[in-house]
Amino acid sequence: MSEHSLITRYFVPLAENFAGSLFLSDDAAILDVPAGQQLIITKDSMSEGVHFIGNEAPALIAKKLLRTNLSDLAAMGATPYCYFLSLALPAPLDESYIQAFASGLADDQKTFSIQLAGGDTITSKGTATFSITAHGLVPQGKALRRNDAKVGDIIYVSGTLGDSALGLQQLKTGGTDAYLINRYQLPQPRVSLGESLRDIATSCIDISDGLLADMNHICKASNVGADIHQTHLPLSAAAHKQLEKDAANWAFIYAGGDDYELLFTLPDGIKPPPHCTAIGRITQGHRVRLLDDETEITPERLGYSH
Amino acid sequence: MSEHSLITRYFVPLAENFAGSLFLSDDAAILDVPAGQQLIITKDSMSEGVHFIGNEAPALIAKKLLRTNLSDLAAMGATPYCYFLSLALPAPLDESYIQAFASGLADDQKTFSIQLAGGDTITSKGTATFSITAHGLVPQGKALRRNDAKVGDIIYVSGTLGDSALGLQQLKTGGTDAYLINRYQLPQPRVSLGESLRDIATSCIDISDGLLADMNHICKASNVGADIHQTHLPLSAAAHKQLEKDAANWAFIYAGGDDYELLFTLPDGIKPPPHCTAIGRITQGHRVRLLDDETEITPERLGYSH
Repeated sequence: MSEHSLITRYFVPLAENFAGSLFLSDDAAILDVPAGQQLIITKDSMSEGVHFIGNEAPALIAKKLLRTNLSDLAAMGATPYCYFLSLALPAPLDESYIQAFASGLADDQKTFSIQLAGGDTITSKGTATFSITAHGLVPQGKALRRNDAKVGDIIYVSGTLGDSALGLQQLKTGGTDAYLINRYQLPQPRVSLGESLRDIATSCIDISDGLLADMNHICKASNVGADIHQTHLPLSAAAHKQLEKDAANWAFIYAGGDDYELLFTLPDGIKPPPHCTAIGRITQGHRVRLLDDETEITPERLGYSH
Repeated sequence: MSEHSLITRYFVPLAENFAGSLFLSDDAAILDVPAGQQLIITKDSMSEGVHFIGNEAPALIAKKLLRTNLSDLAAMGATPYCYFLSLALPAPLDESYIQAFASGLADDQKTFSIQLAGGDTITSKGTATFSITAHGLVPQGKALRRNDAKVGDIIYVSGTLGDSALGLQQLKTGGTDAYLINRYQLPQPRVSLGESLRDIATSCIDISDGLLADMNHICKASNVGADIHQTHLPLSAAAHKQLEKDAANWAFIYAGGDDYELLFTLPDGIKPPPHCTAIGRITQGHRVRLLDDETEITPERLGYSH
């Protein structure tokens, strides 16, 4: 099947409700940006054998790719607008793979109100590599940044921590905890939360490197420190179970990464949105400290470096 | 060397003059679109062993990747604005490769007045795959399309045809024509020409699939036909030489592809920009015909399918 036929059959349906895609018929897309809005743009890629195992359902891989990009938009407070997709797949192109991949995207386009606007499909001599460039909109000057956390601000995190890293551990060790595995395979980008933080948060980031590493990113950009209380960290029942089995699993909670939860700061006294947990406070200095009661237990290794 | 260090050393310098890149420090870039302008966005990828041989200088590969994207912007009449880069490279990351790649981009950023705004660098288990998403600006409603060519319009092409395909043939057969090889390795996106066509062209495309195949794209979109005169096709001295050696090389001229010249139509009587050659006329019907004098010599195969 030719690239042209594949595009017509599987990708034009993902783009046909977005006028600027020109039905994928031209050399590029045309994008209008409403007056008073700015575009927020992120580009995240995934490579077979590195970012996914390779035996996952193609629809799951597609969703994870789109969702990690959406999580970056959420971290900046942006509303999803459109995305561009590049697929590099071993030749010959496998139509059933592309069909399943596209069906995953179609599901998530509905869930997150975003449309395909362009891209390309190429063959590779090696493994598969996928890339998305996602575009979001934010009112002028309202994008969330990392650089304005102030001493005394309260540190919050959405959802629960460590599930994704524990889920990957399940897959690697033959574990069967479906909740944790799902949290690894299908992150939940906190798009609505990001939007609701536009007018109140002094900093925001999505947790991809791990809680402490990403807290460190905020602290460096804002020129502050942070005290985080281990006993306040929000945990799922499934994560609790893993910690009961082995306390060493705490490393997955604060340094596992790929949580795709939002980590953000609010001035003291501002009411946080629902499903967010206060986990500490911004301090003077430059250090991120993890505390058990008042004792520092900060590990050497703050997070994974990708 | 960590991804973070690589980014700081080689990619931040490419982005530091573009405020919206946030010095590559955040989760995404912030893009302003001036009032009355639209964004033109394209995403083109290249895979080792398929789109480049693999032994080219990394700077050349980088330039070709950026330039093929710029050619898509030119085909829509857009002025280059910024781009996002994704590199998937075999682990461990080779710093000297990235350094050379970035230096090629730095050169072309100056040549084409475009800036890096974001992206990512990942490791792959296989071959290298590179992807760029390029953004251009065009005044509202002025983007060039493929769908408005009218019967009687004159068909023009910029530069000369077939050099790139003949250059690839040189590389494959041990040839040494430096001009042709350079035309293959380093396309010249016709950015200024595209801008100058905004108010006059009825259709425009960049030749990537081959003259006849891309003419066919215009004809299908515009619901017209085209007569192209072989004797009018603009040829370089180097291409002439290859045709004298073997008349079968004509296939490289009209079907070779990767020319990255602009193919466009103007109403009869409109003066074309410099360095463009009239090669035929838009006709009724739906067929693209290649004519030698008045005899049709259209080959079966119109162009390469990627």
